[in-house]
Amino acid sequence: MAHDGSNNENSGSPKGKFDHLTSIAETMPSVILNIRGVESPEVHPDGRVTFRLYAPMAGQVNLHGNWMKGHGEWLDSSVPMSKCDDGVWSVTLGPLDPDIYNYRLGVDGLATVDPANPFVNASERNHSSRFEIPGPEPLIHDIARVPHGTVQILDYWSETLGVHREMYVYTPPGYEQREDSHPVLYLLHGTTQRENGWIEAGRANVIIDNLIVQAKAKPMIVVMPYGRAYPRIPVSDGSLGNWGNICLFEQELLAEIIPTVHKRFRIHIGPVNSAIAGLSGGGAESLVTGLKQPGKFAWVAGFSAAIDPSEFDHHFAGLRSDPKSANGLLKLLWIGCGTDDHLYDANETFHQWLTALQVKHTYRRTSGHHTFMVWRRYLAELASLLFR
Amino acid sequence: MAHDGSNNENSGSPKGKFDHLTSIAETMPSVILNIRGVESPEVHPDGRVTFRLYAPMAGQVNLHGNWMKGHGEWLDSSVPMSKCDDGVWSVTLGPLDPDIYNYRLGVDGLATVDPANPFVNASERNHSSRFEIPGPEPLIHDIARVPHGTVQILDYWSETLGVHREMYVYTPPGYEQREDSHPVLYLLHGTTQRENGWIEAGRANVIIDNLIVQAKAKPMIVVMPYGRAYPRIPVSDGSLGNWGNICLFEQELLAEIIPTVHKRFRIHIGPVNSAIAGLSGGGAESLVTGLKQPGKFAWVAGFSAAIDPSEFDHHFAGLRSDPKSANGLLKLLWIGCGTDDHLYDANETFHQWLTALQVKHTYRRTSGHHTFMVWRRYLAELASLLFR
Repeated sequence: MAHDGSNNENSGSPKGKFDHLTSIAETMPSVILNIRGVESPEVHPDGRVTFRLYAPMAGQVNLHGNWMKGHGEWLDSSVPMSKCDDGVWSVTLGPLDPDIYNYRLGVDGLATVDPANPFVNASERNHSSRFEIPGPEPLIHDIARVPHGTVQILDYWSETLGVHREMYVYTPPGYEQREDSHPVLYLLHGTTQRENGWIEAGRANVIIDNLIVQAKAKPMIVVMPYGRAYPRIPVSDGSLGNWGNICLFEQELLAEIIPTVHKRFRIHIGPVNSAIAGLSGGGAESLVTGLKQPGKFAWVAGFSAAIDPSEFDHHFAGLRSDPKSANGLLKLLWIGCGTDDHLYDANETFHQWLTALQVKHTYRRTSGHHTFMVWRRYLAELASLLFR
Repeated sequence: MAHDGSNNENSGSPKGKFDHLTSIAETMPSVILNIRGVESPEVHPDGRVTFRLYAPMAGQVNLHGNWMKGHGEWLDSSVPMSKCDDGVWSVTLGPLDPDIYNYRLGVDGLATVDPANPFVNASERNHSSRFEIPGPEPLIHDIARVPHGTVQILDYWSETLGVHREMYVYTPPGYEQREDSHPVLYLLHGTTQRENGWIEAGRANVIIDNLIVQAKAKPMIVVMPYGRAYPRIPVSDGSLGNWGNICLFEQELLAEIIPTVHKRFRIHIGPVNSAIAGLSGGGAESLVTGLKQPGKFAWVAGFSAAIDPSEFDHHFAGLRSDPKSANGLLKLLWIGCGTDDHLYDANETFHQWLTALQVKHTYRRTSGHHTFMVWRRYLAELASLLFR
């Protein structure tokens, strides 16, 4: 197959077509971009963190962190960074508690990721950078020297939506070497996130690995689909608990996702082996779909769910008309929200609404904002309760 | 397990500790960040593309595209964007040929990703955004309604480097349903990229799926490890063909990665079933490691390899001292580089060096820059030649 000497062929690369762009480029003023190497963020041993950005032409640079007090998109709280003579802006904060944090840099009002930080939470509207403060004791999201499950990226064709889709699927340690089946958790991301959100930012696989090795969770399969009915619902339409999206996604889940994973993986059937949980917009999806289908999912959870009290009677009509059925079918209805979350009032109201209907549920009123710092802990707690 | 009523516990979220940050935030001038919804990029049916950025305070915004003529980091070529009254900058370019492109926005000299574009190529030094121009005919990287292989994200512990690592592993369609073994391609990313580079930007899984269904490639397993010897070699030390990194990564590959995948997957053993290929810095790794170990890899390829002519005699000492052995053991030595690539001269010199030594090889001198537009095509060509 090997042969000697050269073999010159064009690879079909798009050269001539762009010559007009090249000539524009050559006549414009030259701007040197930031490819200068600065270290950012630098995590100090005591938990303080230094952020740096080379931006000599900027007039103001702010650091927006998801640990700062604020609402929802956590863009209204920030600390200013200071400019040094060399054009590098910096600020040192903390010490911060051991955890995983997100931040953005605000450069003259434009929100950007940190160009020096390789860890990016890519999202559908604004991206953020990520860093980790290690602790003296291992945290539940810390990658440990324990048996690891596998995360698979599965491509499938959705007839419902007429598009190719990806889902992330976690199988527990040793799955490939055994023949036994497992219960399944459908775990949904929030609005602006994607199917990789619970892995990259949420560390769901690491959390479940750690719980399994400590015998705090049963081995389970975790299915993380893309949770929006795009393109039939535009990605930009991310309003609170978008009803059209919830209904269409339910169809996608029932007609495409569940049959695909049951065909592909060894999954125990039946509602007591099926859980659905999600965060924010995905929390609304999991509560609506799960509570409409208690015959399908006996375990239902919403983390900081994006639910709207004025729509409860409509969105949860089945539960409202027959709460006793739900109490009989559900093994667990779990709701959690941080008191600094912009969705706290809505979740508090949902808890009261459920209580008035005498629907059995667990309600966690915790500290925290609308962030993965809260949701990772919620997942660890929920996973330890499931399938018992 | 379910119980009634509320259950208020703190989740341990880091609240009180950040109160001092909050108070800083509350006294600083308010800056409204860009969370305004603009559509960017907008791909028009004729292949033109409109890029938009809301940045009312910026003095200059440029678009830096990897299809523009330039060198290496493709940051020295750009087109200016124009500001409208509403603070949105925009430019319309093209038409561009059907392909997948990368770009960055230069805002007053700071390189950023497009905040409106969900598709980010995250890297170790600068990130870019990605868009796709569909074509009238399917391209080899287009996701088609064909059987798909699976991509697994595998966690492993590296004794060699003393760190947790991830690798991406592609198994061909139907792998889980069968019992047969396959040959293996070790496919390495470039400097500043990571183990997901060949999947997210390179579409290696899609390309191999499409080639297999067309009977143009043999079913194979593709292993995509993280290709740097971090932390023993700092990530920031990305110099051309960093020799320390190449030697340590070779150790990681032979002692950790290959045993791990042989234990985990059904792989045909022996050099004729083992290929190694890589792009740029990973091209240097694949050429050095592959040509040093022709008894391990009978198929060796470098795509725009980051090799240094002044080091050929040192880096390829074994080949130089015994080219006849290599000719006997290698099934294919494949080298390709675009004529507009900053590494073109080095690869041309390597071709001449091999020719002078009478080492059998295939050399592709193609059009194109140092981009995935070239490397996707190289992978498609290489994969069709492997394991025949």
